[in-house]
Parts: sequence; C-alpha cells; structure tokens
Amino acid sequence: MTKPAASDIIGEAGFARNINMAEEMNMGDKGKHELWELLDGLKSRYNWVDLSFELSPQTPHWQGFSPMDVKPLYTFENTDGVFCANQYTLSGQYGTHIDFPGHFDPKGRLAHEYGVRDMAYPLVVIDKSAEVRANPDYELSRADVLEFEKVNGPVPAGSFAVFRSDWSMRKAEEYENKDAEGHAHFPGWNIEALKYLVEERNVAVIGHETPDTDSARSGDALGMVGEDYVLKQGRLNVELLRGLDRVPAVGALAFITFPNLKDGVGFSSRVFAIAPK
Amino acid sequence: MTKPAASDIIGEAGFARNINMAEEMNMGDKGKHELWELLDGLKSRYNWVDLSFELSPQTPHWQGFSPMDVKPLYTFENTDGVFCANQYTLSGQYGTHIDFPGHFDPKGRLAHEYGVRDMAYPLVVIDKSAEVRANPDYELSRADVLEFEKVNGPVPAGSFAVFRSDWSMRKAEEYENKDAEGHAHFPGWNIEALKYLVEERNVAVIGHETPDTDSARSGDALGMVGEDYVLKQGRLNVELLRGLDRVPAVGALAFITFPNLKDGVGFSSRVFAIAPK
Repeated sequence: MTKPAASDIIGEAGFARNINMAEEMNMGDKGKHELWELLDGLKSRYNWVDLSFELSPQTPHWQGFSPMDVKPLYTFENTDGVFCANQYTLSGQYGTHIDFPGHFDPKGRLAHEYGVRDMAYPLVVIDKSAEVRANPDYELSRADVLEFEKVNGPVPAGSFAVFRSDWSMRKAEEYENKDAEGHAHFPGWNIEALKYLVEERNVAVIGHETPDTDSARSGDALGMVGEDYVLKQGRLNVELLRGLDRVPAVGALAFITFPNLKDGVGFSSRVFAIAPK
Repeated sequence: MTKPAASDIIGEAGFARNINMAEEMNMGDKGKHELWELLDGLKSRYNWVDLSFELSPQTPHWQGFSPMDVKPLYTFENTDGVFCANQYTLSGQYGTHIDFPGHFDPKGRLAHEYGVRDMAYPLVVIDKSAEVRANPDYELSRADVLEFEKVNGPVPAGSFAVFRSDWSMRKAEEYENKDAEGHAHFPGWNIEALKYLVEERNVAVIGHETPDTDSARSGDALGMVGEDYVLKQGRLNVELLRGLDRVPAVGALAFITFPNLKDGVGFSSRVFAIAPK
C-alpha cells in the first residue's frame, strides 16, 4: 500500500478545489454540485473494498445457527414469464454481521435506535495475521494496540477498530479449527485490549474476522467476556469480516450498513471501505 | 431548502483545504488523514437522511408477499442471561428494497454481480407530490422531466432518479388506495419518462415511493410495462422509498445498500442520502 500523492487526492477531484471555484459551482453552474463532484473523486481515485461475505446457504456463520434458507415464491414458470421473487430465512447474526448492544445486554440499544449517520467510521486495522499464522489461539493484546499506535498514531475516538487475522481466508468448515479433543482454536481480542480501546480511546465499533470477539480458548474457559464487555459498554460489534488485507492500517473509511430493524439485536451487514489506492 | 454558502461546504472541513495543507496531512502529520477529515466534514456539515422504512411485520410491502416473520432462537431466558438472537423470514422485495434486473429478466444481472461501488449515486428528485395529491392516478411524464431539467439542469448519467409523490406519508394499509370496485389507485412513472431517462440520460437507478414502477391504473390495463422496461434495460429499481421531502431536487448523494446475495433478484435496502443543509 503506497501513500497517495497529494495530487491523486486533490487534482481534478472537485471536492478539493479552492473556495472560489467551489462557490462558482454551487451558486452558478447548473448541474455541478459539490457532493456529486466529491462522489466522482471518491469513485475514480480511491479503492472501494468489500469487507463482507456473499450471502448464501454456504456463507460462514456461527455453528449455533442454521444455513440461510432460500424459497422461491414467484418464478418465471408460475408468473407466465413476468417475474421471479424469493423468500429468505436467516438468523440475525448470519454471515458478516453487526451486533447491537441488546444482543448481550437486556437493557442495551437496539437496531432501530441507530440512524444512518451511524453507518460511517474512520477504519483502523490492527494486523496480527503473522502472529495468528504461528498461533491460532493468538489474542490481540493491549501491548499490540500500544505498539500499533507508536507507528500509526492514536486510534481516533469514534472509530471502527478491527483485528486483522486473515482467518477469513479459510474455508467456512475450517473456521472452528477443532483439535482431536473437539476444542475449537481461533484467535480473539484480549479483554485488556478491548478495555483500552473503549475506555482510553472511545472507539465506536469493534470488528474481527472470526465468529466471536473472544478467542475460542478464552471463550471455552471464561465465556464470552470480551463480547459481553463491548456490548454492555454500548459499542457495536462486527463479526465475520473479510478483505482486511486490502485496506491500510489507517486512513480508510468504513461503511457498516444495516436495516432499520425494529427491536433488532443484529443483522447481516454489507461492510465496505473507501481506501487510498 | 436554502443553498449552502460556500463557507459551509469548504471552511474547516479538511477535505477542501488547499493542496499544501492536504499534502502536509497525508505525508507528515500522524493521525490526520484526508478521508477521515472528509467524513468529519460530511457528518458535521450535511444532513444524513434515511430514505427507508423500519423493518418489522408492519412494514409496507407489496400485497403478494407475507409480513416479515420474527422467531426468537436464543433468549436471555434460555441462555442463562447471556444473549439473545432472532431468525427472520422475509421476501426479497420487502419494505424499501432494490430490484436487480433478474427480477423481471431471466437473463438479467443478479445481486452478487454488483459491487460496493454500485451503492453510491448522485440523487435527482422530481417532485410531483402536488399533482399526486390532486390525482392519485398521476403518471410522471416525459414533459415533467424536461420541465425539471429546465430548472435544475440535465439529469446526470449514472444517477439515481426518483419520483417524489409523498405516497410514503400514507399508512401501510392505504398504499393500494382501492376504490369501491376494488381497483387500486396509486401513481407511477409513464413509460416515455422512463425511456427518456434511460436512453437520453443514461440513469443507473429508478426510484419511487409506491410498491410498483407503474401506476396502479396502467398496471391493471397494460401490465408492469415500466418496471419490465427498466429492469430489461439493465437498470436498478428501488421501491417503497420514504423521506423524499427532506432532500433537495439536485445536489445530494444517495447510498443504496444491499447484501451480496448469491443469485438474488432483490432485497430489502437501507437507502440514505447525504444532502446539503
């Protein structure tokens, strides 16, 4: 990932023109609008990276849920060739998904209490994929976050902080990674790292590629203490991410999109980044 | 809706600073990043407007689909207070939703063939709400689009062109608006308006507040010729929008978000705008 030259970001992209030109665009020239020019610039000069899985009965999901079910309601055969439409049955935490505080906290906020402004965040990606390759039980620690900040600057308040493990490069059936005794082995966040990010940095959202916030080993021993902590602190939790190898440590935006689901505690989410090339 | 002053758009918002400052931000100053500053500016200086319905069994939907079903899978009662999770059953065209070409065209593109870059568009809102108030069978015509362009400039290629009817201000049970003989009466796009927008203006997406592209009267008489045309031309179709009274005729951005649904012909969509204040 090379840093973009200033000319790539500014240049002809409209949104960074000088004040006189912007004024002219908005006040006079019909058909030219600042936000439209901005979108042109974002589409032409940045990478748009999908961080979510395809949705199908084969999508990775937590073992406690069934695969998504697809039922044809209308087909070209039964509508005289006019149209087709399907019905979908899926758990609220299917595939790449967002968890709202109410998922773990009986008094926690629910999906319909969040607005569309809650869908965009500065993205921070802490890459511990090499450590996870060497040790699938790896827990991202407070020291890892401090080391990250030495290189990249402080994790900003209100950001989406993500643990890159490259776990999403596995096949769905290899996510649990069970040993001969049937114990799962996958990485997770250490509780002290989460406390630092929430209490010292005030992050808005925690994300990872695995189906749980906690490592499988910690979950077995202590229960889901990390996920419980994050949600009871009123933060959002995003799971089963992918594509984190295509975004930089700092500087990208993430969109975490979700339906306005009445009383929802989670739903499948299309998560994507707009990242410097 | 007053036009924003240039200083509202530019000012301190970072993304429009001059080249020297932007260069400094990217090349030197740790923790400052162009896209992060941009997001700050977008959140503080623009309205983020939800254009989609809440999802629940009560959400407006086409009469040929069942209400969404919600089934609790895990509850605080049956998990010893640890967590809760639900299962959802809904049609692919439930509530505010996007239709992909394959919905009407057996050879048309499907949801998984679109990428995250296909989620953002310049938004164009043609307001015929006064005409619809006077006549619920109103069809937005080619002449209406030409009149709109005289005032607002040409509808841009690649945009999301929307018919504002204020139909979404009705209660769900009043959408069909049936007369004493049982005939529905709701507004729609005239086919010549759609042909103009697709063939002369190359729009990417058509949107409306009603459950169909065509007016109920035209649908009864001729079938869904407008929706068939739009989808067979490879364009996207967004239905059951709301909140269009809160966005300007031109100048806003729209995000139309949808899952990467394998072989999907449509899905519930969170649609939102970022609009000048």
